Amino acid sequence: MTTATDTSTAAAASSNATAGKVITCYAAVARGPHEPLVLEEIEVDPPQKMEVRLRILYTSVCHTDLSAWRSEVPEGERAFPRILGHEAVGVVESVGEGVTDVGEGDHVIPIFNGECGDCAYCRSATSNLCRRYRVDPLRSVMRSDGACRFRSRADGRPIFHFLNTSTFSQYTVLDSACVVNIHPPRHLKMMSLFSCCVSTGVGAAWNVANVQAGSSVAIFGLGALGLAAAQGAKVRGASKIIGVDINSQKFIKGKAMGVTDFVNPMDSSKPVHERIREMTGGGGVDHSLECVGNPQVLREAFLSTHDGWGQTVLVGIYSTSQLLPLHPMELFDGRSITGTIFGGVKGKSQLHHIAHRCLQPDMNMEELITHELPFEKINEAMQLLADGKALRCIMHL
Amino acid sequence: MTTATDTSTAAAASSNATAGKVITCYAAVARGPHEPLVLEEIEVDPPQKMEVRLRILYTSVCHTDLSAWRSEVPEGERAFPRILGHEAVGVVESVGEGVTDVGEGDHVIPIFNGECGDCAYCRSATSNLCRRYRVDPLRSVMRSDGACRFRSRADGRPIFHFLNTSTFSQYTVLDSACVVNIHPPRHLKMMSLFSCCVSTGVGAAWNVANVQAGSSVAIFGLGALGLAAAQGAKVRGASKIIGVDINSQKFIKGKAMGVTDFVNPMDSSKPVHERIREMTGGGGVDHSLECVGNPQVLREAFLSTHDGWGQTVLVGIYSTSQLLPLHPMELFDGRSITGTIFGGVKGKSQLHHIAHRCLQPDMNMEELITHELPFEKINEAMQLLADGKALRCIMHL
Ligand SMILES: [Zn+2]
Ligand SMILES: [Zn+2]
Ligand SMILES: [Zn+2]
Ligand SMILES: [Zn+2]
Repeated sequence: MTTATDTSTAAAASSNATAGKVITCYAAVARGPHEPLVLEEIEVDPPQKMEVRLRILYTSVCHTDLSAWRSEVPEGERAFPRILGHEAVGVVESVGEGVTDVGEGDHVIPIFNGECGDCAYCRSATSNLCRRYRVDPLRSVMRSDGACRFRSRADGRPIFHFLNTSTFSQYTVLDSACVVNIHPPRHLKMMSLFSCCVSTGVGAAWNVANVQAGSSVAIFGLGALGLAAAQGAKVRGASKIIGVDINSQKFIKGKAMGVTDFVNPMDSSKPVHERIREMTGGGGVDHSLECVGNPQVLREAFLSTHDGWGQTVLVGIYSTSQLLPLHPMELFDGRSITGTIFGGVKGKSQLHHIAHRCLQPDMNMEELITHELPFEKINEAMQLLADGKALRCIMHL
Repeated sequence: MTTATDTSTAAAASSNATAGKVITCYAAVARGPHEPLVLEEIEVDPPQKMEVRLRILYTSVCHTDLSAWRSEVPEGERAFPRILGHEAVGVVESVGEGVTDVGEGDHVIPIFNGECGDCAYCRSATSNLCRRYRVDPLRSVMRSDGACRFRSRADGRPIFHFLNTSTFSQYTVLDSACVVNIHPPRHLKMMSLFSCCVSTGVGAAWNVANVQAGSSVAIFGLGALGLAAAQGAKVRGASKIIGVDINSQKFIKGKAMGVTDFVNPMDSSKPVHERIREMTGGGGVDHSLECVGNPQVLREAFLSTHDGWGQTVLVGIYSTSQLLPLHPMELFDGRSITGTIFGGVKGKSQLHHIAHRCLQPDMNMEELITHELPFEKINEAMQLLADGKALRCIMHL
């Protein structure tokens, strides 16, 4: 299925047969908005300086992939043809010049929100938005030279990158700031979820909300993100974890992952925030996590928090142009709102610790894996997520 | 000017001649929106259980008084006739049943944002919004019985209270949760400013922004609030304090109080946030304090902060119905917004410490007192503030 072609562009000393060569392999290419992904032969260039080429073992579909595929996001997002995908686990095939923290054969997690370790943001304890490698939905080329490392085998034209990762491919090239070493290489399917949903959800509960024992949490949207957040809140000892979703089916899995109470907004004409305040002695929850990405849901989440100290954490991505439906004076009642990327996690330096904690026996993140399919069935996996039938479908490459 | 009438409504044991009696005195009564205040004789009832009656020594005008006088604020605010005023210093004339923390003759500061010390909010380290006595612009009567302690001497009709305080009167009645003892009773004119502007401004810098040495701060609006915040930032060691105001006259006083750089938005067509980013090496300030209460200024303040960690503190009051001019995704760049009432200060338990610190020789808050007038000239004092000619005009009662 894969072949290697000699090339003079890279000179990395290596013991494997493909290092420094163009690799021909299969990728699922998005050729246009809403068009089914096409499994086609592509050429993958060797990694340049401070880049890493990975062989992907498992990958899964996240809502951000669906958004990009539908072109729900700004101008630059409409870069087609493109290789989507950002949740995965892989093995380092080869590394470019200067890469020292990972090497051939290492098992790694790609991260869409990189960490160079050296910029003002990486050195700040309060930010996980690396100056160079932070998530950037507008970028579709490699940072070092503005070029693509992917080409169509059929017509030789470049294929764009996505979110620093592009994991819907047998081989991909990333900046080394965007790969995290896993040691020991165990629980690999599960590990792929740390690329995005688990880190983001559990990081929102631990790093951003900093949920404490006995506190109350409302989670809006019980997809993989929301459920990962519920697990995070549960192991922190939250006394009440209210799940909100318009699909009552999601409550079953919710219960298994720590949700203690459920609200289906469709069950009553009473606003969700009033119901949540009633469920919490009139005051509201200490933390709301908005995992939907809908401004009206954001408003309900905000009003569901306790005045004086209630915090709303924005985890979902807002793809409409609607502004915040809040009046400035509503911020004077002691309620705060915080947005978070990748759960506030610094990928290179903190992800290992978080993954280790999430694999302890008091957690059951593996509940998020509801389906497994071969890579060829990626369009089916996309549909399962779009229909709300799958939490995460792991694809085998 | 004042007389006392026997009354059977109060029974507080007291050594003074007026305790337990109705006091007749002068107050500056707002009889309708935009109508000049009328200095007229009123009757002031004795304090009820857990209330305190004060003789006001000094009072000053704040923008919140102007807003209420103009009825810029919601329905309930339109309670006329009303005694405005909330920045003052006074002496306890008598106390009602159960009041133990202040007594006759004590010098005290009225606070519009009270602290009962006992509710969930007062017991929380994170909130200064007392359940019972927090600032409430909609309330115009005493909390215990829903009645007024003020009556017109001319027609016997009640006169409404304002912001738990109503200091534009020779005598006023407050809940004891809304008075703070000053010991020793020195710097009384200055002390009156701790009722509102100084506590709010310096509290915004110390409690809410928690400005650290070497950090950069932009202050939008160089009125008394903004200048108090500048002083607060200065003594915390901020390396750059950028003042923004459309009135260049305010820059002179700003410099005297710690402002290091100035931006007049009218001087250039370039947006203020771009100018501030240029002045801070491209990144923006660590903290923006919005002391104007204008949603567009809020947006500039927000965009002036450094992504990753920049914080916007809302200090001004927003009297229009305009919503927050921000997109939810703009909260994902690590910039936060926080509203603050009374600078996050818990009045009863923390104000004394803050006042003590502000009177140290490295601070010059007395610069905020630009005018002094007799109480009779209160309309002149209102106009001086409205015209931006006075920072604070202390009135002598
Ligand atoms: Zn994702
Ligand atoms: Zn960095
Ligand atoms: Zn005020
Ligand atoms: Zn209280």
